[in-house]
Amino acid sequence: MKRIAILGSTGSIGKSALSVVDAHADKLSVVGLAAGENDELLAEQIAKYRPAIVSMASGAAVDRLKQNGPAGVRIAANGRDGLVDVATAADADIVLCASSGTEALEAVLAAIEHGKTIALANKEVLVMAGGMVMDAARRHGVAILPVDSEHNAIHQCLHGRTGAEVRRLILTASGGPFRGRSASELQGVTAEEALRHPTWRMGRKITIDSATLMNKGLEVIEAHWLFGVRADQIDVVVHPQSVVHSMVELTDGSVIAQLGVTDMRLPIQYAFSYPERWAAPLPSLDLVRAGRLDFDVPDTKAFPCLALAYRALEAERSLPVVMNAANEVAVAKFLEGRIGFPAIAQLIEQTMAAHTPAEVATLAEVRAVDAWARDYAVELAREVELKV
Amino acid sequence: MKRIAILGSTGSIGKSALSVVDAHADKLSVVGLAAGENDELLAEQIAKYRPAIVSMASGAAVDRLKQNGPAGVRIAANGRDGLVDVATAADADIVLCASSGTEALEAVLAAIEHGKTIALANKEVLVMAGGMVMDAARRHGVAILPVDSEHNAIHQCLHGRTGAEVRRLILTASGGPFRGRSASELQGVTAEEALRHPTWRMGRKITIDSATLMNKGLEVIEAHWLFGVRADQIDVVVHPQSVVHSMVELTDGSVIAQLGVTDMRLPIQYAFSYPERWAAPLPSLDLVRAGRLDFDVPDTKAFPCLALAYRALEAERSLPVVMNAANEVAVAKFLEGRIGFPAIAQLIEQTMAAHTPAEVATLAEVRAVDAWARDYAVELAREVELKV
Repeated sequence: MKRIAILGSTGSIGKSALSVVDAHADKLSVVGLAAGENDELLAEQIAKYRPAIVSMASGAAVDRLKQNGPAGVRIAANGRDGLVDVATAADADIVLCASSGTEALEAVLAAIEHGKTIALANKEVLVMAGGMVMDAARRHGVAILPVDSEHNAIHQCLHGRTGAEVRRLILTASGGPFRGRSASELQGVTAEEALRHPTWRMGRKITIDSATLMNKGLEVIEAHWLFGVRADQIDVVVHPQSVVHSMVELTDGSVIAQLGVTDMRLPIQYAFSYPERWAAPLPSLDLVRAGRLDFDVPDTKAFPCLALAYRALEAERSLPVVMNAANEVAVAKFLEGRIGFPAIAQLIEQTMAAHTPAEVATLAEVRAVDAWARDYAVELAREVELKV
Repeated sequence: MKRIAILGSTGSIGKSALSVVDAHADKLSVVGLAAGENDELLAEQIAKYRPAIVSMASGAAVDRLKQNGPAGVRIAANGRDGLVDVATAADADIVLCASSGTEALEAVLAAIEHGKTIALANKEVLVMAGGMVMDAARRHGVAILPVDSEHNAIHQCLHGRTGAEVRRLILTASGGPFRGRSASELQGVTAEEALRHPTWRMGRKITIDSATLMNKGLEVIEAHWLFGVRADQIDVVVHPQSVVHSMVELTDGSVIAQLGVTDMRLPIQYAFSYPERWAAPLPSLDLVRAGRLDFDVPDTKAFPCLALAYRALEAERSLPVVMNAANEVAVAKFLEGRIGFPAIAQLIEQTMAAHTPAEVATLAEVRAVDAWARDYAVELAREVELKV
């Protein structure tokens, strides 16, 4: 029996993870749950899965949860401290980090120090502090198992192959809902349109990141840290059908790809079962029905975010932190209808340009750079907002 | 330095294998060469690679070779005995079996008994005597490394994964030059048309097998023996671009595929370098340039040979031997222009129908069934021939 703690249990990935637990109740149990603001759903999850400890994002959310009066569960501190409490719950074997944004950074580092296996569905943690996280994982002999479908695919393709055998990684991108549009055709698109992802059903932040291709940019940085490859060894190819989840080109030119249906339960189950593999209650991939698979180069003119991410990765040090913070601000503003779609990339680029990359060796330094970038991006957004 | 013996050195695979040796002269040397009737090319190969031992198919070929007077090389017996002599050459580490048809069966078994690693580019050996060959390999702790691009792909996809993790194998088929034609449209096709394969350049026998889909049928049987999976765990999907070389579906529905350029030097090098992987002097696969990948179900009505192979595999015992022998006869007759294209499948089916499957436990029994089926198919061909 593997004991699971889930950070972000009421989100898209969290719910999929619990349905994996349902399908393998003989092999998995839930010992900790951390949610954001959705106290009603968390109360249901507590009643069903009986975790020992839970937390929520805010004191107000915790108060609402307490009114529902779930018995026999410890309600930890709220916010980042609550995430740490759930992530270090004494009996958890695996911590699934599925919260969005950078909130779980401290919790992931704490879980690693407690020797927990990390199932990582969050990109921002590695983008912010990839060096720190991977160092800690090595020091504590902890596995970081990627749940993101692309990195999960690469993990499956490598299957123990070492870096010496790898020529490059090829991340596939669906291209999002605006694939094929020119920069000028993207001027007036709305959040509603951007949220209509063609192949994957995901949370709002990541769906907008998919529409700007920043999601792929974050994945490039994530892949660098997870698999120890340089920026110039990571290529992105647009593949609208999302059947091929990603690929690895080996030193002789042979390419290993992982394909599957677009259902996050598969990579979550892979991370929970690893190094075993369990049967999944899902239909097989039907390639004939899929009909055809297309591959194209990404359009970095209409979607500049991908190029910004490569620039941040090449500069390393603090620039990815700045890029990520500015992106979180910009996406939030766009979702609120306060800035236009093209302003997302502009805002990130300007925030990056205003920053002088420096070493970031501690969490405090990361948080300081992050805070500066957020403030700066908020200011920039205010200016752009007026013009909208 | 790995020492290589090549059975079939003047054929398509043999020549590719020698160009792999050229590219890795620091890691590979040639100690034995067996050719068919092409004494001129073998003489050139002897001069260049200085093997210790060579053989040819017939006494007449050996006589012609001797007139060329290659010095410092032992010319072994001719025919099957010569293949055995080259395959068991004292200092060979790896025997590449790249001769066509069933001639090399004894040689492969002898090489296994001498502890040689087998790089297997020949399908017929496993179709004829898969049980015997795999048993011998297990007993002697010898690796059988598939060179056929499909099985090589599966070997790469599995990468040590065990049968318990495998749901099914998916062999890709280009569909050959006649893909999309109906049975009636195949009535009058000529050998010349059948030899124009759209994606792979190969020998004549295997190219005709590709046109009838019998090649894929032989591969289904080969996959059964190599990977220990049942007939109902092996699917064939038509993939005209030949970019995806084959796939493995794992128990959770995840599919691992191997992709690459269509160049036999890659699987040959893989087998020679295994378990290492060496850089190859070939261009990377350009998926964007490939443009699109299509997948379709095979048309077993127009191409009945594939279904015949499944039937033979399900019956096991002697029926695959009969099918293979009848196919060799039918393809030879078709290449001579003596029978029509649809008659190939008819001839195989009728020969199979005339046979009562029995156990075949020894090489002698295999050869006896093989001889019966050849005779029977030759007789049948004579009847069909008259009607053409």
